[in-house]
Amino acid sequence: MMRVSDPETANELARYEAQKLAFAPLLFQGARAMRDLGVLELLYRAGNDGLTVGEVVSATSLGVYAAGVLLEAGLAAGLASYEAPRFTITKTGVYWLSDRMTRVNAEFAHHVCFRASEHLVESLRAGLPAGLRELGPFSTVYEGLHALAPAVKKAWLDFDHHHSDSVFLSCLADVLEGNPRHVVDIGGNTGNFARACSARAAGDFTLTLVDLPAQVAMARANLADLGSRVRFYETDVRLPSASLPTGDVYWMSQFLDCFPEQEILVILRAVRRAIPPHGRVFVLETFWDRQRYEAARTCVIATTLYFACVANGTSRMLHSADMERLLVEAGFSVVRARHDVGLAHSLLECVPA
Amino acid sequence: MMRVSDPETANELARYEAQKLAFAPLLFQGARAMRDLGVLELLYRAGNDGLTVGEVVSATSLGVYAAGVLLEAGLAAGLASYEAPRFTITKTGVYWLSDRMTRVNAEFAHHVCFRASEHLVESLRAGLPAGLRELGPFSTVYEGLHALAPAVKKAWLDFDHHHSDSVFLSCLADVLEGNPRHVVDIGGNTGNFARACSARAAGDFTLTLVDLPAQVAMARANLADLGSRVRFYETDVRLPSASLPTGDVYWMSQFLDCFPEQEILVILRAVRRAIPPHGRVFVLETFWDRQRYEAARTCVIATTLYFACVANGTSRMLHSADMERLLVEAGFSVVRARHDVGLAHSLLECVPA
Repeated sequence: MMRVSDPETANELARYEAQKLAFAPLLFQGARAMRDLGVLELLYRAGNDGLTVGEVVSATSLGVYAAGVLLEAGLAAGLASYEAPRFTITKTGVYWLSDRMTRVNAEFAHHVCFRASEHLVESLRAGLPAGLRELGPFSTVYEGLHALAPAVKKAWLDFDHHHSDSVFLSCLADVLEGNPRHVVDIGGNTGNFARACSARAAGDFTLTLVDLPAQVAMARANLADLGSRVRFYETDVRLPSASLPTGDVYWMSQFLDCFPEQEILVILRAVRRAIPPHGRVFVLETFWDRQRYEAARTCVIATTLYFACVANGTSRMLHSADMERLLVEAGFSVVRARHDVGLAHSLLECVPA
Repeated sequence: MMRVSDPETANELARYEAQKLAFAPLLFQGARAMRDLGVLELLYRAGNDGLTVGEVVSATSLGVYAAGVLLEAGLAAGLASYEAPRFTITKTGVYWLSDRMTRVNAEFAHHVCFRASEHLVESLRAGLPAGLRELGPFSTVYEGLHALAPAVKKAWLDFDHHHSDSVFLSCLADVLEGNPRHVVDIGGNTGNFARACSARAAGDFTLTLVDLPAQVAMARANLADLGSRVRFYETDVRLPSASLPTGDVYWMSQFLDCFPEQEILVILRAVRRAIPPHGRVFVLETFWDRQRYEAARTCVIATTLYFACVANGTSRMLHSADMERLLVEAGFSVVRARHDVGLAHSLLECVPA
C-alpha cells in the first residue's frame, strides 16, 4: 500500500502514517463514538449526497459541538471525507459501520485490550500478561474468563467465536478422508468441532474430546445428545507425563497458539507417543507470515499482542516455519499444507516421521 | 491517499484500514514498546540489510518471544517491513523513531489522552471533559495542570510548547508593521510572545500582557528584566463585563481555540469595544479545514478530540469559516488571511468593521 516512488510523496505519506499512529488511541475512540452515537449510520444513509454538520444536528439529539467533533473525528480516522460543507462516508467507514469482523475486533480491542495494552512493555520484560490485572486478579485470561465483567466477557467470546467457529467446517473433508474410525480432538473446548465432525462422519465412528476437566464438563453437557459417538478424556496436555488415546486422526484447531514453544513441543511429543504408524495429525492455525491480505495479517499480529499483554504473556500466532520446525522436532513430517482455509487459516497435515 | 480506482483493491485497502483502526490501541502500544525497548533503533542502524529475530535477540536483553512480538508489532503498525527472514525499518518507522513532533504527539496521546479517551462518548453527551477524572479531580485541565503526575505534566507541556512556541516568530513582521506603539497580547500566558515582540519592536513601544491573575503573576516574574516595555493587565476576558486596554494591535495566539463559540464571541466583543478605529487584530490559529497536509490535519483534529474529553469539553480547533463568522458577528472585517504560517497555522488580520 505504501509503494510510492516520488520521494516527496513518500515522505508525506510516512509523516501522515506516523501522525495517525501517534494519535491512534484518540482516533480509535473517536471512530467508536462516531459509530455508537449514530453519526456514521446517518452518513451511510445519506450516500453520495453527504451531510452538513447542521443536518446531522437536525437528525440526532447531538449539539453542534458534538456533531462537529464526531464528523471531524471520522475524517481524521478515514471513515469520512469532507468537501465543504458536506461529509460523506468512505469505504473504510462502511466497513467500520457494517462489517461484523471489524466491529468484533474493535470491541475486543476496546473492552479486553485497551487498558491492558498500556502494560505491554512490562509484559514483554516479565514474560507475564501484566495487562490482565486491568480485568481482574487472574494469572491467565482463561482462568478468569468466568469472572470477567459482562461487557468484557461478551467482547472476548464474540472475538473467540468469530475467529474460531465454523472455520473448521472447511477442514472436515480433510479430516474425514479415508473414513477414520477414531478422531482425537485435542483442546476440544465447548465441543463445536466434535458435533460437526461426528455429524459428518459415516458409520462406525468415535471422537474423543480431550481437554482440562472444566472444559470437558462443559462439553459433556453440550454434547449429551450425541451418545457414544463422542467420548471425553480429561488431561493437561502441557504435562510431560500426559498420555493421550490412540486415534487414527489427531485434530488441533487454534490450540497450539495458546502455548509457548516449549509447551507446544511437549504437546506434540505426547501426540507422537500416542499416534499409530498410519495416524495423521491436523494442525489448524493462523500464521502471520502466510497471510495474503494485509487486513488479515494485522488481525493475526494484533492477536499476538493480546496474547502478550492479556492472555498469558507467552503464546503467539506463530511463523509457519516455526510451527514446522516444532513438528519435525517432535517426530512428524508435514505432508500437506493448505494456506487459504477461511480468511486467514492454514491447515497442516502431518504423519509420524 | 485512498484514491484507488480498481474496486477490488479499493475494498481490500478499506478492509485493511478498518482493521488497523480496530486494533489501533494495540498497534499504538506495540509501536511505543518497539521504540522504547530499542528494537526500532536497531533496525534503523541496520539500514537496508535489516535484522532477523535472532540478531535482535543477540543485540538486546530481549528473549526470542519479546523480540519477535515487537518486530511483528512494528510490521503491523507500518514501522517495519518483512522479507524472510529479515525485518527492515520503513520511512514511517524512521519518523516514529526520530521525528520530534511524532514523539511529542505520541507521548501526549499516551500520558494525557489514552485513558481519558475511553470517556469520549460521555464527554460529548455531557459537554464536559469526562476523561479528565483519569488525571485527577479537576474541572478543566488548565486548573489541574500544577497537580498532574510528573510524566503526564511533562507530556502536556512538551505538546503545548512544541505546537505553540516559536510559531509566532514568523508573525512578528505582520504584527509590528507600521510600528504600533502599543500591542495588547490577550492570553499572554508565560510571556514568550511578549519577550520576542518587545525585543523586535523599535523605539517607543509598550506591550500589555492580558491574562488571569495566576498567569500574570508567572509572566511578571519571567519578564521582570524588560522593565516598562511590558505592562500587565489582569482580567477574565470571558466575562461579558471585561474591559481591555486601548491598543494599536491586539494579538491572540492559539487562545480562542480554548473556548466555546459563545465565549469566543464575548472575548471578541470586548476587543471590539476597546479597539480604536485605526487598530488591528491578529488571530493565529490552526483551522482543521485549512491544512495542506493530511498529517497536519490529523494533528489538528486529534487536538480537538483532546479538548473534548480532557481539556474542557467545549472548545475545539475551528473551521476557518466559523472563526470568520464570529469575527464578523463581533464587528470586525478580516482584511488578510495567511494560511501557511509554520506547519499548520493561519494568521487572520482584522480591523473594526
